[in-house]
Amino acid sequence: MTGTLYGVGVGPGDPELLTLKAARLIASAPVVAYPAPLGGESFARAIAQAVMPDGVTEIRIDIPMDEKRYPAQAAYDGAAAEIAAHLTAGRDVVCLCEGDPLFYGSFMYLLARLSRDHQVEVVPGVTSLTACAAELRHPLSARGEVLSILPGTLSPEVLAARVRDAEAFAIMKVGRHLSKIRDVLAQADLLDRALYIERASLPQQKAMPLAQAPDKAPYFSMILVNKGNDPWLS
Amino acid sequence: MTGTLYGVGVGPGDPELLTLKAARLIASAPVVAYPAPLGGESFARAIAQAVMPDGVTEIRIDIPMDEKRYPAQAAYDGAAAEIAAHLTAGRDVVCLCEGDPLFYGSFMYLLARLSRDHQVEVVPGVTSLTACAAELRHPLSARGEVLSILPGTLSPEVLAARVRDAEAFAIMKVGRHLSKIRDVLAQADLLDRALYIERASLPQQKAMPLAQAPDKAPYFSMILVNKGNDPWLS
Repeated sequence: MTGTLYGVGVGPGDPELLTLKAARLIASAPVVAYPAPLGGESFARAIAQAVMPDGVTEIRIDIPMDEKRYPAQAAYDGAAAEIAAHLTAGRDVVCLCEGDPLFYGSFMYLLARLSRDHQVEVVPGVTSLTACAAELRHPLSARGEVLSILPGTLSPEVLAARVRDAEAFAIMKVGRHLSKIRDVLAQADLLDRALYIERASLPQQKAMPLAQAPDKAPYFSMILVNKGNDPWLS
Repeated sequence: MTGTLYGVGVGPGDPELLTLKAARLIASAPVVAYPAPLGGESFARAIAQAVMPDGVTEIRIDIPMDEKRYPAQAAYDGAAAEIAAHLTAGRDVVCLCEGDPLFYGSFMYLLARLSRDHQVEVVPGVTSLTACAAELRHPLSARGEVLSILPGTLSPEVLAARVRDAEAFAIMKVGRHLSKIRDVLAQADLLDRALYIERASLPQQKAMPLAQAPDKAPYFSMILVNKGNDPWLS
């Protein structure tokens, strides 16, 4: 009897946006793993705090937070080995994932290391994408439209090309890329259609038209735009 | 004291993928509204069945199911009037939405009609997009990648251009567009990277490589592709 690894989405921040399934799996987990910025608090664990069982074994995956493309692979090597030992011993492991495990999440790095030799199940969660849209009451796209999800890390040239070709789009993880993004949207004459939101679904949430946004954005921030080609979205 | 309209995502099908917030709001709702195909069962209501309160007032929104672009606007006119009467009388109304209310959802039509004169809150839900990825254990996109959401209704020419420009993409609502989509992906030499899934998270779910998919797909079906530009997704 070997254990199962569950990659469980815990949603965008509001603990009430956990799914019933996520809450059940976490509450009955013998072992819970979660990423945390080196030296800082784990956001995923904070979201799941209310349903964490007493006496659970915790595996904290310390992630160095720089913007190199794969800064943390050594951390995932270590975590995968630690998780594998629990699975081999017959203990299930629940890995907490901010938002959804496979939507720009780091769970793919554990999946790549562990799915060949172990049973892995993924439980989807509410993404920051739809949480931001909900808080802004902004329909992401109409039924026949293409929706593009653009990382804020793209170069200005690539971002401008993607914005030009898009119908509706979201720019994720705005953070320190805010002024670059604002310039690209201004050039594309889309500033007046752009909405800005940070820390969606949390008490500290701020939401406003991008034109009124502050000059500094936290990592958990997003910009939503629909060009209004569809009459119901204009 | 006027009521609030809640647009509540009920997730992709598995009732356990309701959020805690959705379950709480539905269970305490005096009035619940939901779309249903004319003469057929409401999928949104079926998902929420277990948490529907006894004696709740139900507003069934009968939607004519053809593929005209806006087939159902008269139905939303009628539903909006009925909902508005409850709100004005001080009763909250919970509108059940398949997946997420604002991710290719029809809740935008009620939002457009009711948000000017009434309090509207939107509760995000798990989308079919991430539910399909979870069931297939397929990372949708790596961190620096663009993710494109493509409706299956696009013309072959537009779809081919979008596929060519994409890094990772999902084709939603495959249904009767399956053979067209398969041709486009074959032309783009992406057939061997394409995954097919229908009725994700439900007992009747089927998931397989697109090359092995049946010739007929139901409306709730999706194709996921990542071109594998990122080494962790190859």
